[in-house]
Amino acid sequence: MSRSRLNQVLNSVADAGRELLRRGPPAGRLRERSPGALCEALLSTRGEASGTALARDVADAYGAMSAAEKHAFFATLAADYGPGPAAIHAASDRYKQAPGCDTLTALTAAVEPPRQELFRRINMAPNGTATIVAMREDLLTLLPDDPSLKAVDVDLVHLLTSWFNRGFLHLEQIDWESPAALLQKIMAYEAVHPMAGWADLQRRLADDRRCFAFFHPALPDEPLIFVEVALVRGMASAVQPLISDPGEMLDPAKADTAIFYAINNCRVGLVGISFGNFLIKQVVVELAQELPGLKTFATLSPVPGFRAWLASLVEESEGALSDQEETAIDRLSESDWHTSADAEADVREPLTRLCARYLLEAKSRGRPRDPVARFHLRNGARLERLNWLGDVSEKGLSDSAGLLVNYVYDPKTIERNHESYVREGKIAASPEIKRLAQ
Amino acid sequence: MSRSRLNQVLNSVADAGRELLRRGPPAGRLRERSPGALCEALLSTRGEASGTALARDVADAYGAMSAAEKHAFFATLAADYGPGPAAIHAASDRYKQAPGCDTLTALTAAVEPPRQELFRRINMAPNGTATIVAMREDLLTLLPDDPSLKAVDVDLVHLLTSWFNRGFLHLEQIDWESPAALLQKIMAYEAVHPMAGWADLQRRLADDRRCFAFFHPALPDEPLIFVEVALVRGMASAVQPLISDPGEMLDPAKADTAIFYAINNCRVGLVGISFGNFLIKQVVVELAQELPGLKTFATLSPVPGFRAWLASLVEESEGALSDQEETAIDRLSESDWHTSADAEADVREPLTRLCARYLLEAKSRGRPRDPVARFHLRNGARLERLNWLGDVSEKGLSDSAGLLVNYVYDPKTIERNHESYVREGKIAASPEIKRLAQ
Amino acid sequence: MSRSRLNQVLNSVADAGRELLRRGPPAGRLRERSPGALCEALLSTRGEASGTALARDVADAYGAMSAAEKHAFFATLAADYGPGPAAIHAASDRYKQAPGCDTLTALTAAVEPPRQELFRRINMAPNGTATIVAMREDLLTLLPDDPSLKAVDVDLVHLLTSWFNRGFLHLEQIDWESPAALLQKIMAYEAVHPMAGWADLQRRLADDRRCFAFFHPALPDEPLIFVEVALVRGMASAVQPLISDPGEMLDPAKADTAIFYAINNCRVGLVGISFGNFLIKQVVVELAQELPGLKTFATLSPVPGFRAWLASLVEESEGALSDQEETAIDRLSESDWHTSADAEADVREPLTRLCARYLLEAKSRGRPRDPVARFHLRNGARLERLNWLGDVSEKGLSDSAGLLVNYVYDPKTIERNHESYVREGKIAASPEIKRLAQ
Amino acid sequence: MSRSRLNQVLNSVADAGRELLRRGPPAGRLRERSPGALCEALLSTRGEASGTALARDVADAYGAMSAAEKHAFFATLAADYGPGPAAIHAASDRYKQAPGCDTLTALTAAVEPPRQELFRRINMAPNGTATIVAMREDLLTLLPDDPSLKAVDVDLVHLLTSWFNRGFLHLEQIDWESPAALLQKIMAYEAVHPMAGWADLQRRLADDRRCFAFFHPALPDEPLIFVEVALVRGMASAVQPLISDPGEMLDPAKADTAIFYAINNCRVGLVGISFGNFLIKQVVVELAQELPGLKTFATLSPVPGFRAWLASLVEESEGALSDQEETAIDRLSESDWHTSADAEADVREPLTRLCARYLLEAKSRGRPRDPVARFHLRNGARLERLNWLGDVSEKGLSDSAGLLVNYVYDPKTIERNHESYVREGKIAASPEIKRLAQ
Repeated sequence: MSRSRLNQVLNSVADAGRELLRRGPPAGRLRERSPGALCEALLSTRGEASGTALARDVADAYGAMSAAEKHAFFATLAADYGPGPAAIHAASDRYKQAPGCDTLTALTAAVEPPRQELFRRINMAPNGTATIVAMREDLLTLLPDDPSLKAVDVDLVHLLTSWFNRGFLHLEQIDWESPAALLQKIMAYEAVHPMAGWADLQRRLADDRRCFAFFHPALPDEPLIFVEVALVRGMASAVQPLISDPGEMLDPAKADTAIFYAINNCRVGLVGISFGNFLIKQVVVELAQELPGLKTFATLSPVPGFRAWLASLVEESEGALSDQEETAIDRLSESDWHTSADAEADVREPLTRLCARYLLEAKSRGRPRDPVARFHLRNGARLERLNWLGDVSEKGLSDSAGLLVNYVYDPKTIERNHESYVREGKIAASPEIKRLAQ
Repeated sequence: MSRSRLNQVLNSVADAGRELLRRGPPAGRLRERSPGALCEALLSTRGEASGTALARDVADAYGAMSAAEKHAFFATLAADYGPGPAAIHAASDRYKQAPGCDTLTALTAAVEPPRQELFRRINMAPNGTATIVAMREDLLTLLPDDPSLKAVDVDLVHLLTSWFNRGFLHLEQIDWESPAALLQKIMAYEAVHPMAGWADLQRRLADDRRCFAFFHPALPDEPLIFVEVALVRGMASAVQPLISDPGEMLDPAKADTAIFYAINNCRVGLVGISFGNFLIKQVVVELAQELPGLKTFATLSPVPGFRAWLASLVEESEGALSDQEETAIDRLSESDWHTSADAEADVREPLTRLCARYLLEAKSRGRPRDPVARFHLRNGARLERLNWLGDVSEKGLSDSAGLLVNYVYDPKTIERNHESYVREGKIAASPEIKRLAQ
Repeated sequence: MSRSRLNQVLNSVADAGRELLRRGPPAGRLRERSPGALCEALLSTRGEASGTALARDVADAYGAMSAAEKHAFFATLAADYGPGPAAIHAASDRYKQAPGCDTLTALTAAVEPPRQELFRRINMAPNGTATIVAMREDLLTLLPDDPSLKAVDVDLVHLLTSWFNRGFLHLEQIDWESPAALLQKIMAYEAVHPMAGWADLQRRLADDRRCFAFFHPALPDEPLIFVEVALVRGMASAVQPLISDPGEMLDPAKADTAIFYAINNCRVGLVGISFGNFLIKQVVVELAQELPGLKTFATLSPVPGFRAWLASLVEESEGALSDQEETAIDRLSESDWHTSADAEADVREPLTRLCARYLLEAKSRGRPRDPVARFHLRNGARLERLNWLGDVSEKGLSDSAGLLVNYVYDPKTIERNHESYVREGKIAASPEIKRLAQ
Repeated sequence: MSRSRLNQVLNSVADAGRELLRRGPPAGRLRERSPGALCEALLSTRGEASGTALARDVADAYGAMSAAEKHAFFATLAADYGPGPAAIHAASDRYKQAPGCDTLTALTAAVEPPRQELFRRINMAPNGTATIVAMREDLLTLLPDDPSLKAVDVDLVHLLTSWFNRGFLHLEQIDWESPAALLQKIMAYEAVHPMAGWADLQRRLADDRRCFAFFHPALPDEPLIFVEVALVRGMASAVQPLISDPGEMLDPAKADTAIFYAINNCRVGLVGISFGNFLIKQVVVELAQELPGLKTFATLSPVPGFRAWLASLVEESEGALSDQEETAIDRLSESDWHTSADAEADVREPLTRLCARYLLEAKSRGRPRDPVARFHLRNGARLERLNWLGDVSEKGLSDSAGLLVNYVYDPKTIERNHESYVREGKIAASPEIKRLAQ
């Protein structure tokens, strides 16, 4: 049977279910109700009795809401579906008087906002999980202007963290045999090194490349995060040779290094629910098993906060920069400085030193100021090498001054590095980089 | 590639992962440690750094524990991995002073026991979810003798309820094309009307029968709950004709009634996480779609508490029983009473009336005393008919005095019945049964 | 396990097989042998003993041959692997003396060329069928210059016809969820209305379009033939609105007509083994089942021989053309005649009449001269309508003078039309077209 | 969607096809026609026009025929659908005058019976291939009593041999995860060492056992042939320890020998189309790849013709037997001779010697008289060892006098053994067996 026929049948099954089991108003009419009525319906005893039919109606109703209606919906959730302070006070008093399993359970129940149960019921609908993720995506756009919605976000994060536990994710390799619809999403989600089209994509899925993604069973066609890997000889120092002009195909069995040159989160609605750490480590395991010749697993990463830090340096801490450094920073504002003959001579050395200092010393709340550095160092990777003119794309130049960093994932030192980093804020770095920073 | 080869490869992948990413002691040595050390290792910074390798070690270590070691493990979790009262007091005081999103979030964090995070990390291991379910199964056997473990169970229930949300379950039809290993489990789990072997099973999966189960993606080969259905003409009044001697196959297209004659929960570790409600309603939808000729969806259910209630009647409330009723109850202790010529005359009428009274009037904490009645009535079903000698198996006679009940799932009244039941304790019953009970 | 890993394992299995079971020379050395030695090896007793290992070597050796070596290979097959005339004479004499089962069997054996057995053995190799199809593709390029190879082609056609029996083919719907690698082939094989790229392809696979292909189990990733269908309201009269600028998506449930606007054979090596007839009729069945609203199934087909026939008319049969017709034909040589204001007035009517005459009257060996007409009329379709400026692409103008034809597949008349056509050469045509031709 | 629902949909698709495309009489009425009319309909121009609808009707009609109707059907095929002698004579005369590609093609066409085309068209029906195989199964039961049908069988064998080319078969491992319906067939087809039920089957599919089958894509649920393998240490000498009382499970990684203890052909309709050779060799490759510890691949095979040969010895060639041998043979007629205390002393040595002579010297048309020996020796295996009381089942005793033979498949000598056997009739045997036979 053709796929579209199957969908047709499945949809009619769902419709039949709604007809059979639902007595409430259809989605259209639900939508006419106030958001409060919408929530009431699902949390009431009717929501329990209807199987999943009512949950589907609510999910459909949400999907049909305008932006303003969605805002009103979330505002209602924030205002009316939080826990009751009086109940919390009473429960915490009882716990204080007699701390124990029962009083703790009662207190736990008292602090749980009813909207969590609401979300759990929406999740029961067909595509319920997708609806929840979409809700959070909508919510995140409203949050900056309406902090009163924060409590709703806290609840969504709580639920999504539980549901997207790594034990429920599965790793899949993406290649040229993958469905076109999925590959189209991969192209759309690739933001680190955007793809120029299908030919670019096909090259990135060729025999000497790998792409892996995490999926959740409730979102079967939606990658959550994916990593692109190049199999090479020696640690790659620039990204353009990997993607724009990749040259001859390498026999994967002859590769000694796997370069993780792009990691992309796909769903805004899952921001803050972290998978990246697990993805990289799982892919290291997969590749090591498939290709025993691989000896080094390293990233080729941008330094996205470098130029901004340089700018702040110039502004705030004049005098701390040497003349040579000031000159180098000035050159960056020239267009095409990186192709000019003397850039190498004038800029390379001071800028590379500044970058080493930025990565090792620039802090924000006690952690590295650079977000990419924070991610990999926390994972236990080691800051290995700075690559001059590693990314000469417009984005690479304007964010990272063209520099790229190799972070090495060495299974032997990952746990030690992670512990030193978490406990003491210590950054694992190669001697070369440490020397540069002095 | 053969399945066993595939497993071999997958296992070697997992082993490679352990080798690659693990620096800690292997499972064997972990086991030698105290349970506290085991938990510490996973909750420490090392647990975070190791990807899922350490979680796998802990899951393996648990699997290798003796019963006594498991008890010690849970005792440690209960004693040392609960929330800190002092922290809770402080957080609840701060909330009392300034109720709001931040203080609520802090209080929520304070009341969450650290062992929840421990379980979440174990869940990340390959087969992690299976390990968690097995842990709860073990815990439930310890709980009656060691109530101090209750708090651990509360946490497991909290997590499992979240993870086994109906939105994550998928319905699958079980038939004779299903894997033998799965069918073997179905046979083992069938406790309502135990199966006599493969031939019995095959008949129960024939064209005029249906079997559906819920599965969770993290337990792909494990049915969670399944229902057996017979497609018949007219509402079946006895179960033996359906299973022991089913006679000729009926063309499913000619059936007008679907009889749900057995529902079985499969996993002890999931007791209290309810799926039955959803399963029945989903199967009603599926069958209505597949076979438009079906007009009635009804169960054929035991009355498991009936004989016990009769016994208590005799004991406690003498005088309340008529002579005829006393005689009828007495007859039940005779062997083979149900085949004797005069049973029909002496027993049928008084016993059926008593059963109607039992189902409509006997209460426990305000709800029907009979557990099967509680389940279906809460779901919104209607008590439709009592069937004399509906189940003459040993179990049927000793529990239900041979009676079986049809509960009807009528989509048009499910929600109304459910609401009346939940709000007012009202039992939906056919006029015939109401009359009997008077 | 990732797909590439799986391939790796499968390859190593095959290699192990070769190692285990092969004692002969490896493919490299086989290639150094003469083609005769190559064939001998496989037809000898060794070929029988080696399982499929030797067949794989031969297939590999063929794959590595140069064009000249392939020619020599086929020449050897033609010269040395035909049946022996003496054996045929003897067998036919014996049959003549005593016609019967045994003498017939012997004669059948005598006329079968040994190269058929050779091909059957090559077919046993992994990818053996793909090798056979590739061999025929190679052979077809050699045939025009070397008619002595014809006998080899006869044998390949005999085998491929048997192996690609419609009973072994399966129909699959191609859509945007299909593997990118497959879609890329579809793009490459589309020659009727070439695709402009992935966006064009995606539109042709949208909800109001359908694409179906036949596959053979031994060539799992290779479409053999595919048809593109547009779901529309009313019988489409032009192709550019369907593909270049398709406008709004139509709800498929609202379509009343399925337009088969392109049918493409994919494999040169299967030329002459016909699937098109079965494909169209099967797709009619599929679509009628999926979309009960469809009332008409029609093609939108080119008239590829029309311009050539017009040219021959002008040349050969002067006098038979009216002045108006001559003028119209002359206009066709002007560039962009079809966009000029007076083309409609001058050209439309005479050209359409000429086209009707071409389709109904122009014959080649007793059958319609136009190859597309021959195909659809033989299938039992009806010549329904001529569409002025139905295809204004360069190809459409230069082959078909911009005209397109609707052939209607009406299940009620297919068999009757086919019989009249096959037996009497009668062409089923609409009254309108018949009128035009007068 | 459930499997049964899917079937329902697929059937309705097929029915729709019949409705849409068929104008002929339905299966019921076809059946009322003479078999000749049935064949005519399909071979006529209508058969070509109807897509596959008419083929399905004919297949259905055949399925509904009585035994007598089937006989009449085949008799018609034999009498009326053979090739025409006159046409053959003419074609062979033309070939004699001018041997060449065209005259050969014409002669080939002349000798091909029209019933082959008939079968090819039936094969186009859904389940067409299954119908053809069933037809041959029916035919084989008629053949002994009606030799005039032989020509029809020749044609079926010709087609089936082409269609079941090893290149179209795929190997699948059967294990406890296989569908119950398939496993039930495996049980039914096992005739070498019949299974006692599901528990027996499960043991034969345990971790230290393997079962592999060949499947054809047109018969997806039907095994064609399967082999059962025990993974053991040392070459097994008796079959009962492998199946009846298999003792402890062996870790497959520790096995050094794979014992092929049963090979079963499944479909009577495919008798004479040989797969066994390929199956064994493919399984050797699979196992060698999966379990590198395996050093020996050997069968444990019956000697099914031994007792019959002994009986003929006694009858025909008295005097050639020694007294000891005569005594031993006499003992075989005693019940339970093999458990009596002196059997070992009296019978073992003379009988084993006789068996060695039987296998090495007893011939039928120049080949070994024993059919199992013929099969394995032709495959290139080596007669390795005779096992006294290797099979003490009733069947084992009555056919093989309780003896079992190990034939060793040694990849290094398979081709050489095969060649010596085919060319010179030479039997590869171990020195021990040769010594015994002297």
